[in-house]
Amino acid sequence: MSKIIVQKYGGSSLHDTKAILSVANRISDSHNAGVSIVAVVSAMGSTTDELTNLASQLTNNPDRRELDLLLSTGELVSCTLTTMALQAIGKPSKSLSGWQAGIYTDSRYGKAQIKDIDVSPIMNELQVGNIVIIAGFQGIDDGSDITTLGRGGSDTTAVAIAAALKADKCEIYTDVEGIYSADPRLVPNAKKLSHISYEEMLEMASYGAKMHPRSIELAMTYNVPIYVASSFTENEGTLIHTDSFSKMQNIQEQRKRVTSIATTSGYTKFTLTKVPNRSGLASQIFQPLSEKDISVDEISMNAERGNTTDLTFTVDSEDQENTTAVLQDLKTKLNAGGVIISDNLAKVSIIGTGMREESGYAAIMFTTLANNGINIDLITTSEIRITCLIDQADLEAAAKSLHEAFELD
Amino acid sequence: MSKIIVQKYGGSSLHDTKAILSVANRISDSHNAGVSIVAVVSAMGSTTDELTNLASQLTNNPDRRELDLLLSTGELVSCTLTTMALQAIGKPSKSLSGWQAGIYTDSRYGKAQIKDIDVSPIMNELQVGNIVIIAGFQGIDDGSDITTLGRGGSDTTAVAIAAALKADKCEIYTDVEGIYSADPRLVPNAKKLSHISYEEMLEMASYGAKMHPRSIELAMTYNVPIYVASSFTENEGTLIHTDSFSKMQNIQEQRKRVTSIATTSGYTKFTLTKVPNRSGLASQIFQPLSEKDISVDEISMNAERGNTTDLTFTVDSEDQENTTAVLQDLKTKLNAGGVIISDNLAKVSIIGTGMREESGYAAIMFTTLANNGINIDLITTSEIRITCLIDQADLEAAAKSLHEAFELD
Repeated sequence: MSKIIVQKYGGSSLHDTKAILSVANRISDSHNAGVSIVAVVSAMGSTTDELTNLASQLTNNPDRRELDLLLSTGELVSCTLTTMALQAIGKPSKSLSGWQAGIYTDSRYGKAQIKDIDVSPIMNELQVGNIVIIAGFQGIDDGSDITTLGRGGSDTTAVAIAAALKADKCEIYTDVEGIYSADPRLVPNAKKLSHISYEEMLEMASYGAKMHPRSIELAMTYNVPIYVASSFTENEGTLIHTDSFSKMQNIQEQRKRVTSIATTSGYTKFTLTKVPNRSGLASQIFQPLSEKDISVDEISMNAERGNTTDLTFTVDSEDQENTTAVLQDLKTKLNAGGVIISDNLAKVSIIGTGMREESGYAAIMFTTLANNGINIDLITTSEIRITCLIDQADLEAAAKSLHEAFELD
Repeated sequence: MSKIIVQKYGGSSLHDTKAILSVANRISDSHNAGVSIVAVVSAMGSTTDELTNLASQLTNNPDRRELDLLLSTGELVSCTLTTMALQAIGKPSKSLSGWQAGIYTDSRYGKAQIKDIDVSPIMNELQVGNIVIIAGFQGIDDGSDITTLGRGGSDTTAVAIAAALKADKCEIYTDVEGIYSADPRLVPNAKKLSHISYEEMLEMASYGAKMHPRSIELAMTYNVPIYVASSFTENEGTLIHTDSFSKMQNIQEQRKRVTSIATTSGYTKFTLTKVPNRSGLASQIFQPLSEKDISVDEISMNAERGNTTDLTFTVDSEDQENTTAVLQDLKTKLNAGGVIISDNLAKVSIIGTGMREESGYAAIMFTTLANNGINIDLITTSEIRITCLIDQADLEAAAKSLHEAFELD
């Protein structure tokens, strides 16, 4: 059997039938090179938003099972149309829905996780010479109900299939040309990176660039090289793989440097004030949030004030309403002083391997932000990242000034 | 277990979310009467046309398997939205796609026939108290491929489920208030019938009114009473059942009368002229048409001209192009004189039980048409029907004059 390449095309690459035909031609070119192609597609353009909007005209709180079956139709439309386009240009091709492609998930509607992939339906089609087009973002659970994978779902489908098929590469085609040293919309001087490590990308993904961390983690676990490029140009993209940028460039002495600025928006910060201290307090707060499927982002707890403590955390702004409800309930239960809510927050991060070993980076970052009159709301760090929570309105100025301060321009 | 009623709502009853909410309220009202409800839904408004149009932007000849998976999404959208609407008004409800509802078909994409229904998924939901909303028009074949049932598909889904569940009634809700003595758009004096027999409806369905004969035949076979009514009003509709109109009305002496005028459009007539006579000629002509899935409607063959014969038949105008190709090929093979094509034809029929036993009806029909200057292209008859093929342009005048001539006004 020939080499297998898994490709993924995002919704902006499939916004109308002309774009779909263009994607079919790209797939066909790859196939002409003598490799077996499996292409995972997202829903066309804004289809998912349109379907969500239909549901919201009927109910504020749609049943997640029903919503998943509804949303799964978007990718069915794009995968059948892409298949027809390939057939129209003479390429043998077949579409498979998520469940037809053997993608089995748990039952967490709207954010399901892939449990297993039975590769035989895909392999059977590849073996008879078909290009296989797969509906991304979806799978089936043990009860034969359709599930969707939530954010980054189609990328995750592509990487998971690449891992299961032991494919040579997973190519993610999107509307940008690769991974940049910062968001080009905020920082005009941002540069495209030719290589980046999974670890660096993971921080980028969590804090700015376009791939969801789950797909990067999956690729890292199964060592699937990911190539991110534009579906609209032939320009070289960015390869995400095990070796770090610095090692690839053979510039060991520059290892400890900031390689990129990551930005992301849409956070709400909650502070539960003057909570009487007790053992198991954090669990009492975060367990009810978890039960509502609210994913807590950053947590800061300062228990030094004696008998009471303040507890701060951030959530995605989409979860603001649900979180508020849980906290109002907890405030009474835990006899807390109050709940403070700050919304319209964003994050800016500096990313680079080995940062923790050098002390100067944090200082440069905080000074740069201060010099630009930007208040820092919360600070968190990891091995290769320092993140500041700031006002959404300050995000562009923060990204630009940090990009310049760390000599990435 | 309580009584089961199967309802079906057409696309015009579900054209937007407001209409869907109105349908949900009707379903809820039926459910409040203490019966178990299974509702089959068509795609919203013109969704199916829009999806077909997308495919036609990519290819003139879309693969039927791909087209079926594409088209099946229309009903998935409407069934999930209808379910959400029911849940929003407090009714426990669950949607099932065709395959989730256990609807197994053959593999004739675009015109699949239901082979079997496994009622357990539906029964399981009814038993826990859910209203079950099912995506019409679709099923799954032995190879786990999605199929669509073609014309009259959602009606057929509803009747087949009613039969399999041994439901008390199958209610078809549409945008007209029932079955009329003629098409009200052509004949303003047309009257709504309160009862009609399967046999009469079968001729109506084949020659005018809105239900496809396959659903009527299925209902007749399993003796499922069908109630056809409007989803927009509370007015009484028409019950289609085993007993004829006349028997229900206890007016036996009026049995032999015309009960309705049926009209239908979109036919093309083909004549293969001067075909050398030989045994098996008809088979040589109709076998290749059948292989192209072209359904021949009326056939007329006059073999009295000695060594050669003329053979005439009609097809749905949608099949005109394919039929022309087959006939050009046959013309050479069979050494025929030529192919004559007449398009833009329509049919008008008079319908009533026992017509063949009375001789006067045909004469009145032909005289009426002649007096109105309408040429008859072809005549066919059955036990309860006389049909004339005429020009599309004459259809309205024909229907009106016959409705008056047979005292249906």
